[in-house]
Amino acid sequence: METPLSRTDRTRLGRHAERAGTTRSDLDAVLDQGMVCHLGVVVNGSPRVIPTGYGRIGGTLYLHGSTGASSLAASPSQEVCVTVTHLDGVVLARSVFNHSLNYRSAIIYGVPRPVTDPDEKLAGLRAITERLAPGQWDHARLPTRKELAATTVLALPLTEASVKVRQGPPIDEDEDYALDLWAGVLPVRQVLDAPEPDPRLPPGVPVPPHIARRATPTS
Amino acid sequence: METPLSRTDRTRLGRHAERAGTTRSDLDAVLDQGMVCHLGVVVNGSPRVIPTGYGRIGGTLYLHGSTGASSLAASPSQEVCVTVTHLDGVVLARSVFNHSLNYRSAIIYGVPRPVTDPDEKLAGLRAITERLAPGQWDHARLPTRKELAATTVLALPLTEASVKVRQGPPIDEDEDYALDLWAGVLPVRQVLDAPEPDPRLPPGVPVPPHIARRATPTS
Repeated sequence: METPLSRTDRTRLGRHAERAGTTRSDLDAVLDQGMVCHLGVVVNGSPRVIPTGYGRIGGTLYLHGSTGASSLAASPSQEVCVTVTHLDGVVLARSVFNHSLNYRSAIIYGVPRPVTDPDEKLAGLRAITERLAPGQWDHARLPTRKELAATTVLALPLTEASVKVRQGPPIDEDEDYALDLWAGVLPVRQVLDAPEPDPRLPPGVPVPPHIARRATPTS
Repeated sequence: METPLSRTDRTRLGRHAERAGTTRSDLDAVLDQGMVCHLGVVVNGSPRVIPTGYGRIGGTLYLHGSTGASSLAASPSQEVCVTVTHLDGVVLARSVFNHSLNYRSAIIYGVPRPVTDPDEKLAGLRAITERLAPGQWDHARLPTRKELAATTVLALPLTEASVKVRQGPPIDEDEDYALDLWAGVLPVRQVLDAPEPDPRLPPGVPVPPHIARRATPTS
C-alpha cells in the first residue's frame, strides 16, 4: 500500500488542491529526478534560501555542507524547508492572466538531525554524490578522515511534505476560447551535454561508460 | 560606471569569496536568464520556500500571486529572500570530496513593497509575463479590472544582493592529479522544445513567430 504524506496546515494546498501529490512515491518521484534543492533557513529572524545538493535513502533526505558554512551551521535543531522544483513548460494562454508554468515541485519541512554515526555519514554522502553523479562513489577517490571531518551531514525525515504538479494545456476563461489567438505549451527540459574533459587530464583517458551514458540523446 | 552591489554581513560570501559577482550587471545577468525564483518567507517562525515567477524593471524585482495565497499575503512588511539559480554543469573530480556543481546564482534580501499604483502594477505584471513568455503581453488578452484586483504585485529593490558563480573544470588536490581517473564537467542546459498547441485550438492557427523562435535549436 502507498504511504500517504502527512497533512498539516502548511502542507495542505490552499490553492489548486487538485494539483497535490498525496503519497510518498509522488514525493520520491520529484526528489529522485533533481540535482539541486533550495534550502530555506531562518537566520536572525530573516529567511535565507540557498541552492545545494541533496540525496535520499528511503524516508530520509540528506544534506551536506562545510562545517564552516553559516547557513548549515544554523540548521541543527532549527526548522528548515527544502524545496525541489522541476520546470516542465511555459503555459501560453489566450489571456495574460491565465499564463502559467508546468512543473513538479516538492516542499519538505522538518528539523534536521546532525549525522554523527560514521557509517550513516558515509551513506548520506554517498547518496548526495550519487544523486549528482551516479556511479562516481565507486569510481572516484573516497573521502579521507580529514575530508569527512570537514563535512557536516544533516538528515531530514520525509514525513511533513507536500507535492504539487501542474501539467497540460492552458485553462482559459470560457469566452476566451473564441479568440483568434494561438495557445499551448512551450516544453522546458534539462539536458546533459557531452562530457568535457578536464584540461589537466593526460591524453587518452577514456570517458567511463557510467558518465558517457548520461549525456541526453539528441533525437 | 558599474553599480556595485551592497555588502552586508549576509551578502558577503563566507566561503569561496572568489566566486562572487560584485556589480548590478552581474546580478541582472543572472536574473534576466531565469524563469523561476525560489521565494523564502518566514511563516510562524518557520522558513517556507516556494517556486514562483518574477520580473525585473531596472533596479526593482517584481513578484506576483493570488490575493488569496498565504505565502505572499504574509510577505508585505516582512523580509523575504529571493534566490535564482542556473545549473550549468556537474563537476566530476578525481575525489568524491571535490565533486561540485557549475552554477550561477543570485540571492536578494529585502522587504517587499505592495504595489498599489495601477500603472506600476500593470508594468510589474508585464515584466513578470515577459520574463516567462516574451512577446505575449502584446499578443494575449490583457487583464480585466477583476483579474487585476485578484492579483497581488510586490516590488523588491535590488539593493541587498549577492551573486555567486562557479564555472570550469574540477579543482582537485595536488596529489590526486596523478590518479588514473577521468575528470571533467558534464554540462547541464535548459532547453525549450517545439511548441505544443492546445488541443482546443481550431486547426490551422499558426504558431506566432515570437513563440516559434524560442525553441532551442538542435545542433
